Amino acid sequence: MLDAKMYEDAWLSSAVSSRDMMAGDAAKARQAVLTKPAGSLGRLEEMAVFLASCQGRECPEISNPHILIFAADHGIVEEGVSAFPAEVTTQMMLNFLNGGAAISVLAHELGAKLSVIDVGSLADDMPDGIVTDRVAKGSKNFRHAQALTREELLHAFSAGQRAVMRSLDAQADILIPGEMGIGNTSAAAAVAAGVTGRFVEDICGPGTGLTAEGVKQKAAILRAALKHHGLSGENDPLDVLLKVGGHEIAALCGSFIAAAQAGCPVLVDGFICSVAALAAVKINPGARDWLIFSHKSAEPGHGIVLDALEAKPLLDLGMRLGEGSGASVALPLLKLACRLHSGMATFESAGVSAGEGK
Amino acid sequence: MLDAKMYEDAWLSSAVSSRDMMAGDAAKARQAVLTKPAGSLGRLEEMAVFLASCQGRECPEISNPHILIFAADHGIVEEGVSAFPAEVTTQMMLNFLNGGAAISVLAHELGAKLSVIDVGSLADDMPDGIVTDRVAKGSKNFRHAQALTREELLHAFSAGQRAVMRSLDAQADILIPGEMGIGNTSAAAAVAAGVTGRFVEDICGPGTGLTAEGVKQKAAILRAALKHHGLSGENDPLDVLLKVGGHEIAALCGSFIAAAQAGCPVLVDGFICSVAALAAVKINPGARDWLIFSHKSAEPGHGIVLDALEAKPLLDLGMRLGEGSGASVALPLLKLACRLHSGMATFESAGVSAGEGK
Repeated sequence: MLDAKMYEDAWLSSAVSSRDMMAGDAAKARQAVLTKPAGSLGRLEEMAVFLASCQGRECPEISNPHILIFAADHGIVEEGVSAFPAEVTTQMMLNFLNGGAAISVLAHELGAKLSVIDVGSLADDMPDGIVTDRVAKGSKNFRHAQALTREELLHAFSAGQRAVMRSLDAQADILIPGEMGIGNTSAAAAVAAGVTGRFVEDICGPGTGLTAEGVKQKAAILRAALKHHGLSGENDPLDVLLKVGGHEIAALCGSFIAAAQAGCPVLVDGFICSVAALAAVKINPGARDWLIFSHKSAEPGHGIVLDALEAKPLLDLGMRLGEGSGASVALPLLKLACRLHSGMATFESAGVSAGEGK
Repeated sequence: MLDAKMYEDAWLSSAVSSRDMMAGDAAKARQAVLTKPAGSLGRLEEMAVFLASCQGRECPEISNPHILIFAADHGIVEEGVSAFPAEVTTQMMLNFLNGGAAISVLAHELGAKLSVIDVGSLADDMPDGIVTDRVAKGSKNFRHAQALTREELLHAFSAGQRAVMRSLDAQADILIPGEMGIGNTSAAAAVAAGVTGRFVEDICGPGTGLTAEGVKQKAAILRAALKHHGLSGENDPLDVLLKVGGHEIAALCGSFIAAAQAGCPVLVDGFICSVAALAAVKINPGARDWLIFSHKSAEPGHGIVLDALEAKPLLDLGMRLGEGSGASVALPLLKLACRLHSGMATFESAGVSAGEGK
């Protein structure tokens, strides 16, 4: 049951855009006459048809991808749940800006615009190249306190929406939301357990690199936190995000909903983004229609979250870096899917004999 | 047991190049200090390290990929084993040249040089843009006859070698061998069964699109052919290629061996290329060291062949088109792996705190 009072800002539950199924059908018909055995491009065909329905045209193109990295800090880091210290969130934000992070290199190689949005880091101030859109420095330690206030949660949702709108104003045709936040696999695991009712021990993983013993301790802390907040079974996603979420997880969630409402497809990255996507779909089920799942993370809980979303990601490369990196690595597949779809000859135009059923 | 007389042309069994493991170790050490959790780029790290060892430098680059499509026809098509008629081999070769095939579009998008080599098609003559390097038009129908003569087999091996040498003369830094040949999933399935000793029924699949009934008939024909040639259990790969192989399968096999001898990495495409790679590795085990497996085909026998090669491909997108298309789709992953490896900052250069074991 959703808390109606949360929807004073009614935008979260507003209807999403409808994909253009006529364009999708036209794309499907086109695939059937291209010079290849029917279906032989596998998921690349599926992606071309999906993007046709998103863009409302038989031959879609991806020419202006935007990467949106939401960054925030987490009070739960006080409990020793991460292999890296909290200051790394801020250090990595500067690394994004200076071109040294994985996502910086990927954005450059892919010709994607990269935006970094501080929705709740501990940093005192940030250089101009980083968007500051926060009302707090970090979440509270949810082992003992509520992670976010209602104001903070609604602000983070709308920070995600604002980032999407800036990209769409700049004619983005696909969005890659990503995240940075030391401690955020802990918050994400707690959120996933809180909204699915699954054991947090089955979801919790090494994050940036805990030992097996570290993972066990992290899981114990998360179990205690969920118990402290009375989060057993399946719970209202907004309630879960307030109690054990984080600023960037909420911003991601807002970005997925806003993109679906605006009719822009989204490439979903790994574990944390998928947890935010699951929360988004629980808040506004229509958001699912605009999501493309890019990769299966090595983080062990990702499979549970993907199953809950009925999602089969494109890649499985053992990646677990975050920052939107897995989604970015999948982007060339979508571009190639579009180019194959629009650029291949038909049996008729190429004078190639068609197959026969036998 | 290999037939020593086959090695009059001794090049097939000559030693392959050694990869530079010092460069690989330097690349591994570099990966450990880049600004990301150790191992978090998964198989992209593995690929960067592998390519470093191939290129003998800490920071490898992929800048000149060559795609080599070997095309040939198959007498076994007389038995009704394919959903497409034999003339499609020639029609598709022209489609490759004219830019309308999947591999043409991919080559263009990836900036890869595409060569089409006729090693045994039924075509009377071909336009200048296609390399003709054949001594026969098609293989014999191996249901009743030996597919290739010894002269034809040795010619096809060396046609593969010649194509590799032309690409290396043009400074190719990675090769993508591919194939076109109506009927070649039948020949490949028979070769795979003949060299592994596995049931051909477990390897045989729909190819370009047979119905379930068609697959059953194809398997029965292949079983009868293997019996006719006395190919039960594991057999000498050269004997198997002579009896149930094909010109392009042998050319692919020769290309894998020649590339390994010259020290050039190869991206292996789907089912047919993997069968040729398996034959190559059985002829010259060192060839395995230079192979990167690109994708898992939807053709059901591919898993058996990959297992025999202890290969875990990068992609699993349900593709089953051939033409080197799956390998080409994987190429951007290798390029991104190299760029991440060379372009990312180190913890020290970016002033990012390293993680600690806990």
